[in-house]
Amino acid sequence: MSPASVNDNEVDIVIGAFRSDLTSFMEEWRPIFSRFHLIVVKDPDVKEVQIPEGFDVRVYTESDIVKVVGSSKASLFSGYSSRYFGYLVSNKKYIISIDDDCSPAKTKDGDLVDIVAYHLNNLKTPATPFFFNTLYDPYQKGSDFVRGYPFSLRSGVPCALSCGLWLNFADYDAPTQALKPDMRNTRYVDAVLTVPLKSMMPMSGVNIAFDRELVGPAMLPALKLVKEGKVRWETMEDVWCGLVVKTVCDHLKLGVKSGIPYVWRNEKGSAIDSLKKEWEGVKLMEDAVPFFETLRLSPSSVTAEDCVVEIAAAVKERLGSTHAVFVSAAEAMVEWVKLWKAVRSLDH
Amino acid sequence: MSPASVNDNEVDIVIGAFRSDLTSFMEEWRPIFSRFHLIVVKDPDVKEVQIPEGFDVRVYTESDIVKVVGSSKASLFSGYSSRYFGYLVSNKKYIISIDDDCSPAKTKDGDLVDIVAYHLNNLKTPATPFFFNTLYDPYQKGSDFVRGYPFSLRSGVPCALSCGLWLNFADYDAPTQALKPDMRNTRYVDAVLTVPLKSMMPMSGVNIAFDRELVGPAMLPALKLVKEGKVRWETMEDVWCGLVVKTVCDHLKLGVKSGIPYVWRNEKGSAIDSLKKEWEGVKLMEDAVPFFETLRLSPSSVTAEDCVVEIAAAVKERLGSTHAVFVSAAEAMVEWVKLWKAVRSLDH
Repeated sequence: MSPASVNDNEVDIVIGAFRSDLTSFMEEWRPIFSRFHLIVVKDPDVKEVQIPEGFDVRVYTESDIVKVVGSSKASLFSGYSSRYFGYLVSNKKYIISIDDDCSPAKTKDGDLVDIVAYHLNNLKTPATPFFFNTLYDPYQKGSDFVRGYPFSLRSGVPCALSCGLWLNFADYDAPTQALKPDMRNTRYVDAVLTVPLKSMMPMSGVNIAFDRELVGPAMLPALKLVKEGKVRWETMEDVWCGLVVKTVCDHLKLGVKSGIPYVWRNEKGSAIDSLKKEWEGVKLMEDAVPFFETLRLSPSSVTAEDCVVEIAAAVKERLGSTHAVFVSAAEAMVEWVKLWKAVRSLDH
Repeated sequence: MSPASVNDNEVDIVIGAFRSDLTSFMEEWRPIFSRFHLIVVKDPDVKEVQIPEGFDVRVYTESDIVKVVGSSKASLFSGYSSRYFGYLVSNKKYIISIDDDCSPAKTKDGDLVDIVAYHLNNLKTPATPFFFNTLYDPYQKGSDFVRGYPFSLRSGVPCALSCGLWLNFADYDAPTQALKPDMRNTRYVDAVLTVPLKSMMPMSGVNIAFDRELVGPAMLPALKLVKEGKVRWETMEDVWCGLVVKTVCDHLKLGVKSGIPYVWRNEKGSAIDSLKKEWEGVKLMEDAVPFFETLRLSPSSVTAEDCVVEIAAAVKERLGSTHAVFVSAAEAMVEWVKLWKAVRSLDH
């Protein structure tokens, strides 16, 4: 994976800061991140963020958020959702987003895995959602389309989203972590593949990259649990966002890839403590997944913004009566599209 | 992967013999195959088959085929389709089927990959076609369901088909092999996954296993090219069979897995020579894939036999006018179901 083909000016790396001292995090990532512009969005609960020198970084605080979106909407960007403010203000083509409890994974030879190079390779090569290729992404070096793959489908579609994976602590939910406290993900699967059309997947926000120009408006904070905290297994915002963006990609004939690159995930929080909370998110998925699996958008939705607004209306209508959180999510989605358009109009 | 859990009496290994001397092939596989009953089906063009001692093997010849299906239908089982006769006469729950140009793959430690143990592990653990799990098959050791995976979908469905992969010569078509004669598949991807619902894939018959009781009637020889020969890239029978069986699995709520185990594939035939032939199969896929992707079976089809008969009728109606080979395929599918029922009725 040669990072040479990456243009520094087309990438923003977005980090939501949930702790004051990002020094060790940044030092670990320095060899990979130092070339790029970084957007750090401070969670309002964090006092000050310490970042070592030598980075091209812009730190956004609560007052920056209020300045851009107004105080009434600033609550959209608390907790894990702070990173979405970074998506909103970025003007680069590609965004890489990573949780601050991750370190670079290492190859067998001890080299750091350059997630930027891998993610951009995933995004810059076509995705193939219309037919499954048994040798995974045919656009990866050393792979190709298997016998029987229709030639008319081989040019694929633009890839809009690249979902990376995790070694050590995988992104399991609280019950799974609590049941299997010693479980670590040690299996390095050297593959990436296109998630097929109409197949929904549980997107994790831990380690992702996307083409902001294609699907930025669909990478949104919307579904927030009342008691959600600072550990991934308590959140639903990224899983919901994944259902939205996959629906948008399916409709707009864009692709989503899942697989490499990996990051090394460190422990954060106690799964046992988390279990004491309500499993609100777990229950919500039972309604959310059938909804998204059967949702078909109208041909009049031709942009990501259109799609999000149409999805929001359907959420309100079909899910609104099952749980109030869906009503709030629908409203937040409409709000997000308004913000997205407003910020874009400032650029011009 | 412990082979200890495999019951010898529930497995038949089926091999279509396209050359007289299977000695080296059998010796390579002896450590893995010697525990099991083998069904070798001799291609009518091959004179005699040499098999070393020490195997529990039954060799079927043309006269055996005529005895069971009659001389008028024996042509169903020529060339690569000879193996389907093995599927027809087997009475085991699981069938492993492998091309005679494959050797066992080796692990990093030099051990042979036990394809029987891997395939049975795939088949005996549930498949999860209704939602994509980003950490691949959650039933593999060391994996699990990722955060956000609906709990109601975690028990999965029975897995009916396990499609293995290939190192060295991958199963590419003739144009790909001819364009990239030096390409070898060296990437070992340590994963297996469920091919999602409604996603079609190019099944290769090189290295597969299936639950005969669940989908045996759908593992059929039907689509034969006029000029097809003895190299995989000239055939379509397995790709077509894959489209049929995937459609059946989707309808009957069964799963298809793709991934490990690998076999080592040796060279067979000249890709350049093959290129001189017509690319009939390549063209057929352009019609076949949209047909299968949009085909929905009726609720009255509740067995694999029912499904195949319904698919055959739809093939005749919707594809018959585009190419005569589809008409023949539809007829062969109906014929196959009749044979399947006839052979089963003899068992009882």
